[in-house]
Amino acid sequence: MDLVYLNGEYVPKSSANISIFDRGLLFSDAVYEVISVIDDRLIDMDRHVSRLERSLGELSINAFADWTAISQYLVAENKLKEGLIYLQVSRGVMDEREYRWPAPDTPPTIFAFAQERALLENPMANRGMRIITRPDLRWQRCDIKTTQLLYASLMKMEAVAAGVDDVWMTRDDMITEGTSQNAHIISSDGVLISHQLDRRILPGVTRIEMLAQASAMELMVEERAFSIDEAKNAAEAFVTSSTLLVMPVVEIDGHRIGDGKPGDQTGKIRQNYLAAVQRASSTTN
Amino acid sequence: MDLVYLNGEYVPKSSANISIFDRGLLFSDAVYEVISVIDDRLIDMDRHVSRLERSLGELSINAFADWTAISQYLVAENKLKEGLIYLQVSRGVMDEREYRWPAPDTPPTIFAFAQERALLENPMANRGMRIITRPDLRWQRCDIKTTQLLYASLMKMEAVAAGVDDVWMTRDDMITEGTSQNAHIISSDGVLISHQLDRRILPGVTRIEMLAQASAMELMVEERAFSIDEAKNAAEAFVTSSTLLVMPVVEIDGHRIGDGKPGDQTGKIRQNYLAAVQRASSTTN
Repeated sequence: MDLVYLNGEYVPKSSANISIFDRGLLFSDAVYEVISVIDDRLIDMDRHVSRLERSLGELSINAFADWTAISQYLVAENKLKEGLIYLQVSRGVMDEREYRWPAPDTPPTIFAFAQERALLENPMANRGMRIITRPDLRWQRCDIKTTQLLYASLMKMEAVAAGVDDVWMTRDDMITEGTSQNAHIISSDGVLISHQLDRRILPGVTRIEMLAQASAMELMVEERAFSIDEAKNAAEAFVTSSTLLVMPVVEIDGHRIGDGKPGDQTGKIRQNYLAAVQRASSTTN
Repeated sequence: MDLVYLNGEYVPKSSANISIFDRGLLFSDAVYEVISVIDDRLIDMDRHVSRLERSLGELSINAFADWTAISQYLVAENKLKEGLIYLQVSRGVMDEREYRWPAPDTPPTIFAFAQERALLENPMANRGMRIITRPDLRWQRCDIKTTQLLYASLMKMEAVAAGVDDVWMTRDDMITEGTSQNAHIISSDGVLISHQLDRRILPGVTRIEMLAQASAMELMVEERAFSIDEAKNAAEAFVTSSTLLVMPVVEIDGHRIGDGKPGDQTGKIRQNYLAAVQRASSTTN
Protein backbone atom coordinates (compact mmCIF):
# COMPACT_ATOMS: atom_id res chain seq x y z
CA MET A 1 0.00 0.00 0.00
CA ASP A 2 2.95 2.29 -0.63
CA LEU A 3 1.52 4.44 -3.40
CA VAL A 4 -0.31 7.56 -2.29
CA TYR A 5 -2.07 10.35 -4.20
CA LEU A 6 -1.03 13.91 -3.35
CA ASN A 7 -2.14 16.99 -5.28
CA GLY A 8 -2.20 15.45 -8.72
CA GLU A 9 0.71 13.05 -8.33
CA TYR A 10 1.18 9.47 -7.21
CA VAL A 11 4.11 9.24 -4.82
CA PRO A 12 5.47 6.77 -2.29
CA LYS A 13 4.20 7.15 1.31
CA SER A 14 7.63 8.32 2.45
CA SER A 15 7.47 11.43 0.26
CA ALA A 16 3.79 12.22 0.87
CA ASN A 17 4.43 15.39 2.84
CA ILE A 18 2.53 18.65 3.06
CA SER A 19 3.32 22.11 4.35
CA ILE A 20 2.85 22.91 8.03
CA PHE A 21 0.85 25.91 6.75
CA ASP A 22 -1.90 23.68 5.42
CA ARG A 23 -5.26 24.72 6.86
CA GLY A 24 -6.14 21.10 7.49
CA LEU A 25 -3.32 20.99 10.00
CA LEU A 26 -3.73 24.44 11.60
CA PHE A 27 -7.54 24.86 11.56
CA SER A 28 -8.97 21.36 10.92
CA ASP A 29 -10.33 23.02 7.80
CA ALA A 30 -10.68 19.72 5.93
CA VAL A 31 -13.16 16.98 5.04
CA TYR A 32 -12.68 13.34 4.15
CA GLU A 33 -14.24 10.08 3.01
CA VAL A 34 -13.47 6.42 3.67
CA ILE A 35 -14.58 4.06 0.90
CA SER A 36 -14.54 0.33 1.45
CA VAL A 37 -12.95 -2.01 -1.07
CA ILE A 38 -14.18 -5.58 -1.41
CA ASP A 39 -12.96 -8.00 -4.10
CA ASP A 40 -10.82 -5.11 -5.42
CA ARG A 41 -13.98 -3.04 -6.08
CA LEU A 42 -14.92 0.31 -4.56
CA ILE A 43 -18.22 0.02 -2.69
CA ASP A 44 -20.85 2.76 -3.09
CA MET A 45 -18.34 5.17 -4.64
CA ASP A 46 -21.01 7.43 -6.13
CA ARG A 47 -22.62 8.03 -2.75
CA HIS A 48 -19.23 8.78 -1.19
CA VAL A 49 -18.55 11.31 -3.94
CA SER A 50 -21.96 12.92 -3.35
CA ARG A 51 -21.32 13.19 0.36
CA LEU A 52 -17.80 14.56 -0.18
CA GLU A 53 -19.21 17.20 -2.52
CA ARG A 54 -21.86 18.08 0.06
CA SER A 55 -19.20 18.44 2.80
CA LEU A 56 -17.08 20.64 0.53
CA GLY A 57 -20.14 22.72 -0.33
CA GLU A 58 -21.09 23.25 3.34
CA LEU A 59 -17.61 24.68 3.96
CA SER A 60 -17.30 26.50 0.62
CA ILE A 61 -14.10 24.63 -0.24
CA ASN A 62 -13.46 24.69 -3.99
CA ALA A 63 -12.01 21.34 -4.96
CA PHE A 64 -12.57 19.29 -8.06
CA ALA A 65 -10.90 16.02 -8.93
CA ASP A 66 -11.88 12.72 -10.43
CA TRP A 67 -12.35 11.12 -7.01
CA THR A 68 -13.37 7.80 -8.54
CA ALA A 69 -10.42 7.59 -10.93
CA ILE A 70 -7.96 8.44 -8.13
CA SER A 71 -9.48 5.80 -5.89
CA GLN A 72 -9.53 3.18 -8.63
CA TYR A 73 -5.90 3.89 -9.51
CA LEU A 74 -4.84 3.46 -5.87
CA VAL A 75 -6.75 0.16 -5.65
CA ALA A 76 -5.16 -1.12 -8.85
CA GLU A 77 -1.58 0.04 -8.33
CA ASN A 78 -1.50 -1.06 -4.69
CA LYS A 79 -3.18 -4.37 -5.63
CA LEU A 80 -5.71 -3.78 -2.87
CA LYS A 81 -8.14 -6.70 -2.58
CA GLU A 82 -9.97 -5.75 0.61
CA GLY A 83 -9.69 -2.65 2.75
CA LEU A 84 -10.35 1.00 2.23
CA ILE A 85 -9.47 4.14 0.34
CA TYR A 86 -9.08 7.32 2.40
CA LEU A 87 -9.61 10.68 0.63
CA GLN A 88 -8.98 14.07 2.28
CA VAL A 89 -9.44 17.62 1.02
CA SER A 90 -8.40 20.75 2.88
CA ARG A 91 -8.78 24.41 2.01
CA GLY A 92 -5.09 24.55 1.12
CA VAL A 93 -1.93 26.26 2.27
CA MET A 94 -1.78 29.79 3.71
CA ASP A 95 1.10 32.25 3.47
CA GLU A 96 0.42 33.36 7.03
CA ARG A 97 -1.71 31.71 9.70
CA GLU A 98 -5.09 33.48 9.76
CA TYR A 99 -8.67 32.47 10.70
CA ARG A 100 -9.98 34.12 7.53
CA TRP A 101 -9.97 31.92 4.50
CA PRO A 102 -7.35 32.54 1.84
CA ALA A 103 -8.45 33.70 -1.64
CA PRO A 104 -11.01 31.31 -3.23
CA ASP A 105 -8.53 30.39 -5.99
CA THR A 106 -6.09 28.95 -3.42
CA PRO A 107 -5.43 25.36 -4.52
CA PRO A 108 -6.91 22.84 -2.07
CA THR A 109 -4.72 20.11 -0.64
CA ILE A 110 -5.98 16.74 -1.84
CA PHE A 111 -4.56 13.40 -0.84
CA ALA A 112 -5.66 9.79 -0.78
CA PHE A 113 -4.22 6.47 0.30
CA ALA A 114 -5.12 2.79 0.42
CA GLN A 115 -5.19 0.64 3.52
CA GLU A 116 -5.62 -3.14 3.78
CA ARG A 117 -8.21 -4.46 6.21
CA ALA A 118 -10.29 -7.65 6.57
CA LEU A 119 -13.87 -6.46 6.13
CA LEU A 120 -15.82 -9.62 5.31
CA GLU A 121 -14.06 -11.96 7.75
CA ASN A 122 -14.32 -9.75 10.81
CA PRO A 123 -14.51 -11.87 13.99
CA MET A 124 -16.77 -9.22 15.56
CA ALA A 125 -19.57 -10.31 13.20
CA ASN A 126 -19.78 -13.61 15.09
CA ARG A 127 -19.27 -12.42 18.66
CA GLY A 128 -20.92 -8.99 18.41
CA MET A 129 -19.68 -5.65 19.71
CA ARG A 130 -19.71 -4.51 23.32
CA ILE A 131 -20.54 -0.84 23.73
CA ILE A 132 -20.48 1.77 26.48
CA THR A 133 -22.27 5.14 26.34
CA ARG A 134 -20.71 8.54 26.93
CA PRO A 135 -21.90 12.15 26.47
CA ASP A 136 -21.53 13.45 22.92
CA LEU A 137 -19.34 16.54 23.32
CA ARG A 138 -18.55 16.99 19.63
CA TRP A 139 -19.38 20.11 17.68
CA GLN A 140 -22.95 20.47 16.46
CA ARG A 141 -22.40 19.97 12.72
CA CYS A 142 -21.70 16.24 12.80
CA ASP A 143 -23.45 15.98 9.43
CA ILE A 144 -20.29 17.39 7.82
CA LYS A 145 -17.51 14.81 7.60
CA THR A 146 -14.66 16.97 8.88
CA THR A 147 -11.32 15.87 10.31
CA GLN A 148 -12.33 17.20 13.75
CA LEU A 149 -12.11 13.67 15.11
CA LEU A 150 -10.35 14.31 18.39
CA TYR A 151 -13.38 13.59 20.57
CA ALA A 152 -14.22 10.42 18.64
CA SER A 153 -10.61 9.35 19.09
CA LEU A 154 -10.73 10.11 22.84
CA MET A 155 -13.92 8.05 23.09
CA LYS A 156 -12.29 5.17 21.21
CA MET A 157 -9.59 5.19 23.88
CA GLU A 158 -12.29 5.19 26.60
CA ALA A 159 -13.63 2.03 25.02
CA VAL A 160 -10.16 0.50 24.95
CA ALA A 161 -9.64 1.42 28.62
CA ALA A 162 -13.03 -0.12 29.52
CA GLY A 163 -12.18 -3.31 27.61
CA VAL A 164 -15.07 -2.91 25.15
CA ASP A 165 -15.28 -2.34 21.40
CA ASP A 166 -16.72 1.14 21.08
CA VAL A 167 -18.68 4.08 22.49
CA TRP A 168 -22.17 5.23 21.57
CA MET A 169 -22.47 8.94 22.27
CA THR A 170 -25.53 10.65 23.73
CA ARG A 171 -27.05 14.13 23.69
CA ASP A 172 -29.93 14.77 26.11
CA ASP A 173 -29.90 11.03 26.94
CA MET A 174 -30.61 10.12 23.31
CA ILE A 175 -28.04 8.11 21.39
CA THR A 176 -26.53 9.96 18.44
CA GLU A 177 -23.99 7.55 16.95
CA GLY A 178 -20.80 5.57 17.53
CA THR A 179 -17.28 6.97 17.25
CA SER A 180 -17.26 6.18 13.53
CA GLN A 181 -20.50 4.28 12.89
CA ASN A 182 -24.22 4.97 12.80
CA ALA A 183 -26.15 3.23 15.61
CA HIS A 184 -29.43 1.33 15.21
CA ILE A 185 -31.74 -0.90 17.24
CA ILE A 186 -34.60 -3.30 16.53
CA SER A 187 -37.30 -3.08 19.18
CA SER A 188 -38.97 -6.12 20.74
CA ASP A 189 -41.94 -5.56 18.43
CA GLY A 190 -39.68 -5.68 15.40
CA VAL A 191 -39.29 -2.00 14.50
CA LEU A 192 -35.90 -0.88 13.21
CA ILE A 193 -35.10 2.49 14.83
CA SER A 194 -32.35 4.68 13.39
CA HIS A 195 -31.53 8.31 14.27
CA GLN A 196 -33.05 10.74 11.76
CA LEU A 197 -30.68 12.60 9.45
CA ASP A 198 -29.90 15.94 11.09
CA ARG A 199 -26.88 17.85 12.34
CA ARG A 200 -26.27 15.35 15.16
CA ILE A 201 -25.15 12.43 13.00
CA LEU A 202 -23.20 11.69 9.87
CA PRO A 203 -25.45 10.66 6.97
CA GLY A 204 -23.92 7.21 6.63
CA VAL A 205 -23.47 5.74 3.16
CA THR A 206 -23.84 2.20 4.50
CA ARG A 207 -26.92 3.33 6.47
CA ILE A 208 -28.73 4.10 3.16
CA GLU A 209 -28.22 0.61 1.73
CA MET A 210 -28.96 -0.97 5.14
CA LEU A 211 -32.33 0.85 5.30
CA ALA A 212 -33.10 -0.33 1.75
CA GLN A 213 -32.38 -3.92 2.81
CA ALA A 214 -34.52 -3.56 5.94
CA SER A 215 -37.43 -2.31 3.82
CA ALA A 216 -37.00 -5.19 1.39
CA MET A 217 -37.22 -7.51 4.41
CA GLU A 218 -40.48 -5.74 5.30
CA LEU A 219 -39.15 -4.48 8.61
CA MET A 220 -40.94 -1.38 9.91
CA VAL A 221 -38.46 1.52 10.04
CA GLU A 222 -38.65 4.58 12.29
CA GLU A 223 -36.09 7.30 11.69
CA ARG A 224 -35.88 8.98 15.09
CA ALA A 225 -33.54 9.27 18.06
CA PHE A 226 -33.73 6.52 20.69
CA SER A 227 -32.73 6.63 24.35
CA ILE A 228 -30.12 4.58 26.23
CA ASP A 229 -32.97 2.74 27.99
CA GLU A 230 -34.70 1.93 24.71
CA ALA A 231 -31.40 0.58 23.41
CA LYS A 232 -30.84 -1.59 26.49
CA ASN A 233 -34.34 -3.04 26.16
CA ALA A 234 -34.11 -3.57 22.40
CA ALA A 235 -34.28 -7.05 20.88
CA GLU A 236 -31.27 -6.34 18.70
CA ALA A 237 -28.74 -3.58 18.16
CA PHE A 238 -26.16 -2.97 15.47
CA VAL A 239 -23.98 -0.40 13.75
CA THR A 240 -23.24 0.44 10.13
CA SER A 241 -20.10 1.97 8.66
CA SER A 242 -18.07 1.66 5.50
CA THR A 243 -15.50 -0.58 7.16
CA LEU A 244 -17.68 -2.46 9.68
CA LEU A 245 -20.48 -2.85 7.09
CA VAL A 246 -23.37 -4.15 9.25
CA MET A 247 -22.08 -5.22 12.68
CA PRO A 248 -24.14 -6.61 15.58
CA VAL A 249 -24.01 -5.11 19.09
CA VAL A 250 -24.59 -7.54 21.98
CA GLU A 251 -23.95 -5.39 25.06
CA ILE A 252 -24.56 -1.77 26.05
CA ASP A 253 -23.20 -0.40 29.35
CA GLY A 254 -22.78 -3.94 30.67
CA HIS A 255 -26.39 -4.81 29.80
CA ARG A 256 -27.00 -7.75 27.43
CA ILE A 257 -29.02 -7.03 24.33
CA GLY A 258 -31.59 -9.79 23.67
CA ASP A 259 -29.96 -13.10 24.55
CA GLY A 260 -26.49 -11.59 24.32
CA LYS A 261 -25.81 -13.04 20.88
CA PRO A 262 -25.85 -11.26 17.50
CA GLY A 263 -29.51 -10.78 16.49
CA ASP A 264 -31.17 -12.81 13.75
CA GLN A 265 -32.57 -9.83 11.87
CA THR A 266 -29.19 -8.10 12.09
CA GLY A 267 -27.58 -11.21 10.66
CA LYS A 268 -30.01 -11.22 7.74
CA ILE A 269 -29.49 -7.52 7.09
CA ARG A 270 -25.73 -8.10 7.03
CA GLN A 271 -26.07 -11.05 4.65
CA ASN A 272 -28.43 -9.20 2.35
CA TYR A 273 -26.26 -6.09 2.45
CA LEU A 274 -23.19 -8.12 1.45
CA ALA A 275 -25.11 -9.88 -1.32
CA ALA A 276 -26.29 -6.52 -2.67
CA VAL A 277 -22.76 -5.10 -2.53
CA GLN A 278 -21.36 -8.09 -4.39
CA ARG A 279 -24.13 -7.98 -7.02
CA ALA A 280 -23.54 -4.26 -7.56
CA SER A 281 -19.78 -4.62 -7.89
CA SER A 282 -20.11 -7.47 -10.39
CA THR A 283 -22.46 -5.48 -12.64
CA THR A 284 -21.49 -1.81 -12.40
CA ASN A 285 -17.78 -1.66 -11.71
CA MET B 1 10.14 35.17 9.02
CA ASP B 2 11.53 32.35 6.91
CA LEU B 3 13.03 30.18 9.65
CA VAL B 4 10.73 27.57 11.14
CA TYR B 5 11.22 24.94 13.86
CA LEU B 6 10.26 21.37 12.97
CA ASN B 7 10.99 18.33 15.13
CA GLY B 8 14.33 19.47 16.50
CA GLU B 9 15.59 21.34 13.46
CA TYR B 10 15.42 24.88 12.16
CA VAL B 11 14.51 24.86 8.48
CA PRO B 12 13.24 27.32 5.87
CA LYS B 13 9.45 27.58 5.50
CA SER B 14 9.60 25.95 2.08
CA SER B 15 10.95 22.70 3.51
CA ALA B 16 8.76 22.65 6.63
CA ASN B 17 6.69 19.65 5.56
CA ILE B 18 5.14 16.82 7.54
CA SER B 19 3.70 13.44 6.66
CA ILE B 20 0.08 13.16 5.57
CA PHE B 21 -0.13 10.43 8.25
CA ASP B 22 0.34 12.96 11.04
CA ARG B 23 -2.51 12.69 13.55
CA GLY B 24 -2.79 16.46 13.66
CA LEU B 25 -3.88 16.34 10.03
CA LEU B 26 -6.08 13.22 10.10
CA PHE B 27 -7.68 13.48 13.57
CA SER B 28 -7.07 17.09 14.75
CA ASP B 29 -5.14 15.37 17.51
CA ALA B 30 -3.03 18.45 18.25
CA VAL B 31 -2.76 21.45 20.54
CA TYR B 32 -1.12 24.83 20.08
CA GLU B 33 -0.16 28.17 21.60
CA VAL B 34 0.20 31.68 20.23
CA ILE B 35 2.65 33.87 22.15
CA SER B 36 2.82 37.58 21.46
CA VAL B 37 6.15 39.31 20.86
CA ILE B 38 6.58 42.98 21.71
CA ASP B 39 9.92 44.83 21.52
CA ASP B 40 11.45 41.48 20.49
CA ARG B 41 10.38 39.94 23.83
CA LEU B 42 8.06 36.99 24.38
CA ILE B 43 5.08 38.06 26.50
CA ASP B 44 3.90 35.81 29.34
CA MET B 45 5.88 32.85 28.02
CA ASP B 46 5.71 30.93 31.32
CA ARG B 47 1.92 31.02 31.37
CA HIS B 48 1.77 29.85 27.74
CA VAL B 49 4.08 26.95 28.61
CA SER B 50 1.86 26.03 31.59
CA ARG B 51 -1.24 26.08 29.44
CA LEU B 52 0.43 24.06 26.67
CA GLU B 53 1.49 21.47 29.24
CA ARG B 54 -2.06 21.36 30.60
CA SER B 55 -3.49 20.84 27.07
CA LEU B 56 -0.97 18.06 26.41
CA GLY B 57 -1.82 16.48 29.76
CA GLU B 58 -5.59 16.55 29.09
CA LEU B 59 -4.98 14.59 25.86
CA SER B 60 -2.17 12.40 27.24
CA ILE B 61 0.24 13.55 24.53
CA ASN B 62 3.83 12.95 25.58
CA ALA B 63 5.89 15.86 24.33
CA PHE B 64 8.79 17.62 25.94
CA ALA B 65 10.84 20.42 24.45
CA ASP B 66 12.37 23.65 25.61
CA TRP B 67 9.40 25.68 24.34
CA THR B 68 10.94 28.95 25.56
CA ALA B 69 14.31 28.36 23.92
CA ILE B 70 12.67 27.41 20.61
CA SER B 71 10.51 30.52 20.70
CA GLN B 72 13.40 32.79 21.64
CA TYR B 73 15.55 31.36 18.85
CA LEU B 74 12.81 31.99 16.29
CA VAL B 75 12.41 35.58 17.53
CA ALA B 76 16.15 36.20 17.35
CA GLU B 77 16.95 34.49 14.05
CA ASN B 78 13.92 35.96 12.28
CA LYS B 79 14.68 39.37 13.82
CA LEU B 80 11.06 39.56 14.95
CA LYS B 81 10.30 42.88 16.68
CA GLU B 82 6.54 42.63 17.05
CA GLY B 83 4.18 39.80 16.23
CA LEU B 84 3.73 36.28 17.44
CA ILE B 85 5.23 32.83 17.83
CA TYR B 86 2.99 29.89 16.95
CA LEU B 87 3.76 26.49 18.55
CA GLN B 88 1.95 23.26 17.67
CA VAL B 89 2.26 19.73 19.02
CA SER B 90 0.46 16.69 17.62
CA ARG B 91 0.45 13.07 18.75
CA GLY B 92 2.73 12.19 15.86
CA VAL B 93 2.70 10.09 12.72
CA MET B 94 0.83 6.77 12.38
CA ASP B 95 1.79 3.83 10.17
CA GLU B 96 -1.88 3.25 9.37
CA ARG B 97 -4.84 5.54 9.94
CA GLU B 98 -6.60 4.43 13.13
CA TYR B 99 -8.70 6.14 15.82
CA ARG B 100 -6.72 4.40 18.53
CA TRP B 101 -3.60 6.21 19.59
CA PRO B 102 -0.25 4.85 18.48
CA ALA B 103 2.20 3.52 21.10
CA PRO B 104 3.01 6.12 23.80
CA ASP B 105 6.63 6.30 22.67
CA THR B 106 5.61 7.54 19.20
CA PRO B 107 7.49 10.82 18.69
CA PRO B 108 5.14 13.81 18.68
CA THR B 109 5.23 16.26 15.79
CA ILE B 110 6.38 19.64 17.05
CA PHE B 111 6.66 22.78 14.97
CA ALA B 112 6.80 26.52 15.53
CA PHE B 113 7.00 29.63 13.41
CA ALA B 114 7.18 33.40 13.75
CA GLN B 115 4.75 35.87 12.23
CA GLU B 116 5.03 39.67 12.08
CA ARG B 117 2.02 41.69 13.21
CA ALA B 118 1.41 45.20 14.55
CA LEU B 119 0.11 44.63 18.08
CA LEU B 120 0.61 47.98 19.83
CA GLU B 121 -0.45 50.23 16.96
CA ASN B 122 -3.69 48.46 16.10
CA PRO B 123 -6.23 50.93 14.64
CA MET B 124 -9.03 48.91 16.29
CA ALA B 125 -7.87 50.18 19.69
CA ASN B 126 -9.08 53.68 18.72
CA ARG B 127 -12.26 52.83 16.82
CA GLY B 128 -13.33 49.73 18.80
CA MET B 129 -14.57 46.38 17.50
CA ARG B 130 -18.01 45.68 16.10
CA ILE B 131 -19.36 42.27 17.09
CA ILE B 132 -22.26 40.03 16.14
CA THR B 133 -23.47 37.04 18.18
CA ARG B 134 -23.95 33.49 16.90
CA PRO B 135 -24.66 30.13 18.57
CA ASP B 136 -21.57 28.40 19.93
CA LEU B 137 -21.59 25.03 18.14
CA ARG B 138 -18.03 24.05 19.07
CA TRP B 139 -17.17 20.91 21.02
CA GLN B 140 -17.59 21.05 24.78
CA ARG B 141 -13.93 21.03 25.83
CA CYS B 142 -13.07 24.56 24.76
CA ASP B 143 -10.72 24.75 27.75
CA ILE B 144 -8.23 22.63 25.78
CA LYS B 145 -6.44 24.64 23.10
CA THR B 146 -6.81 22.17 20.23
CA THR B 147 -6.52 22.81 16.50
CA GLN B 148 -10.25 22.06 16.07
CA LEU B 149 -10.76 25.64 14.89
CA LEU B 150 -13.08 25.07 11.97
CA TYR B 151 -16.15 26.55 13.66
CA ALA B 152 -14.20 29.59 14.89
CA SER B 153 -12.94 30.05 11.34
CA LEU B 154 -16.48 29.74 9.91
CA MET B 155 -17.65 32.36 12.43
CA LYS B 156 -14.80 34.67 11.46
CA MET B 157 -16.08 34.47 7.89
CA GLU B 158 -19.62 35.24 9.13
CA ALA B 159 -18.20 38.41 10.67
CA VAL B 160 -16.44 39.29 7.42
CA ALA B 161 -19.68 38.69 5.47
CA ALA B 162 -21.60 40.90 7.94
CA GLY B 163 -19.00 43.66 7.66
CA VAL B 164 -18.04 43.50 11.34
CA ASP B 165 -14.89 42.56 13.22
CA ASP B 166 -15.78 39.37 15.03
CA VAL B 167 -18.37 37.01 16.51
CA TRP B 168 -19.18 36.39 20.15
CA MET B 169 -20.57 32.90 20.54
CA THR B 170 -23.43 31.93 22.84
CA ARG B 171 -24.65 28.79 24.61
CA ASP B 172 -28.10 28.94 26.21
CA ASP B 173 -28.15 32.69 25.41
CA MET B 174 -25.04 33.29 27.51
CA ILE B 175 -21.92 34.60 25.82
CA THR B 176 -18.99 32.21 25.95
CA GLU B 177 -16.19 33.93 24.04
CA GLY B 178 -15.06 35.37 20.72
CA THR B 179 -13.61 33.35 17.83
CA SER B 180 -10.13 33.71 19.33
CA GLN B 181 -10.56 36.06 22.30
CA ASN B 182 -12.11 36.04 25.75
CA ALA B 183 -15.11 38.38 26.06
CA HIS B 184 -15.75 40.78 28.95
CA ILE B 185 -18.13 43.60 29.91
CA ILE B 186 -18.24 46.35 32.49
CA SER B 187 -21.77 46.92 33.80
CA SER B 188 -23.30 50.36 34.28
CA ASP B 189 -22.54 50.08 38.01
CA GLY B 190 -18.88 49.46 37.27
CA VAL B 191 -18.56 45.70 37.72
CA LEU B 192 -16.23 43.86 35.36
CA ILE B 193 -17.95 40.61 34.32
CA SER B 194 -15.92 37.80 32.74
CA HIS B 195 -17.01 34.21 32.03
CA GLN B 196 -15.81 31.83 34.75
CA LEU B 197 -13.11 29.34 33.84
CA ASP B 198 -14.84 26.13 32.81
CA ARG B 199 -15.06 23.85 29.76
CA ARG B 200 -16.90 26.49 27.74
CA ILE B 201 -14.00 28.92 27.34
CA LEU B 202 -10.26 28.94 26.85
CA PRO B 203 -8.40 30.02 29.99
CA GLY B 204 -6.86 33.09 28.39
CA VAL B 205 -3.32 34.07 29.33
CA THR B 206 -4.05 37.76 28.68
CA ARG B 207 -7.26 37.40 30.72
CA ILE B 208 -5.18 36.60 33.84
CA GLU B 209 -3.08 39.76 33.63
CA MET B 210 -6.16 41.80 32.63
CA LEU B 211 -7.98 40.66 35.78
CA ALA B 212 -4.93 41.55 37.87
CA GLN B 213 -4.94 45.06 36.36
CA ALA B 214 -8.68 45.42 36.97
CA SER B 215 -8.20 44.47 40.62
CA ALA B 216 -5.34 46.93 40.96
CA MET B 217 -7.72 49.59 39.60
CA GLU B 218 -10.17 48.52 42.34
CA LEU B 219 -12.80 47.43 39.87
CA MET B 220 -15.25 44.87 41.26
CA VAL B 221 -14.85 41.62 39.31
CA GLU B 222 -17.50 38.91 38.85
CA GLU B 223 -16.40 35.73 37.13
CA ARG B 224 -19.64 34.42 35.64
CA ALA B 225 -21.41 34.05 32.30
CA PHE B 226 -23.34 37.08 31.02
CA SER B 227 -26.23 37.22 28.57
CA ILE B 228 -26.48 38.96 25.18
CA ASP B 229 -28.91 41.47 26.77
CA GLU B 230 -26.52 42.19 29.65
CA ALA B 231 -23.77 42.78 27.11
CA LYS B 232 -25.92 45.14 25.04
CA ASN B 233 -26.80 47.15 28.14
CA ALA B 234 -23.25 47.21 29.50
CA ALA B 235 -21.35 50.47 29.93
CA GLU B 236 -18.27 48.99 28.25
CA ALA B 237 -17.25 45.79 26.53
CA PHE B 238 -13.89 44.43 25.44
CA VAL B 239 -11.92 41.36 24.53
CA THR B 240 -8.54 39.99 25.51
CA SER B 241 -6.19 37.78 23.52
CA SER B 242 -2.47 37.36 23.03
CA THR B 243 -2.51 39.29 19.76
CA LEU B 244 -5.33 41.80 20.40
CA LEU B 245 -4.11 42.37 23.97
CA VAL B 246 -6.98 44.40 25.49
CA MET B 247 -9.34 45.58 22.73
CA PRO B 248 -12.51 47.66 23.17
CA VAL B 249 -15.87 46.56 21.71
CA VAL B 250 -18.28 49.35 20.71
CA GLU B 251 -21.15 47.49 19.05
CA ILE B 252 -22.94 44.17 19.59
CA ASP B 253 -25.56 42.96 17.08
CA GLY B 254 -25.96 46.49 15.75
CA HIS B 255 -26.51 47.89 19.25
CA ARG B 256 -24.11 50.59 20.49
CA ILE B 257 -22.28 49.89 23.73
CA GLY B 258 -22.25 52.99 26.00
CA ASP B 259 -21.77 56.04 23.80
CA GLY B 260 -20.42 53.90 20.96
CA LYS B 261 -16.81 54.82 21.68
CA PRO B 262 -14.11 52.70 23.36
CA GLY B 263 -14.79 52.78 27.12
CA ASP B 264 -12.66 54.75 29.58
CA GLN B 265 -12.08 51.87 31.96
CA THR B 266 -11.21 49.61 29.04
CA GLY B 267 -8.70 52.20 27.86
CA LYS B 268 -7.10 52.32 31.31
CA ILE B 269 -6.95 48.53 31.53
CA ARG B 270 -5.27 48.43 28.10
CA GLN B 271 -2.74 51.12 29.13
CA ASN B 272 -1.99 49.46 32.46
CA TYR B 273 -1.74 46.06 30.79
CA LEU B 274 0.77 47.39 28.24
CA ALA B 275 2.77 49.15 30.96
CA ALA B 276 2.91 45.91 32.98
CA VAL B 277 3.98 43.93 29.92
CA GLN B 278 6.75 46.38 29.13
CA ARG B 279 7.96 46.49 32.74
CA ALA B 280 8.04 42.70 32.86
CA SER B 281 9.93 42.35 29.60
CA SER B 282 12.52 44.93 30.63
CA THR B 283 13.26 43.15 33.91
CA THR B 284 12.83 39.41 33.38
CA ASN B 285 13.70 38.70 29.78
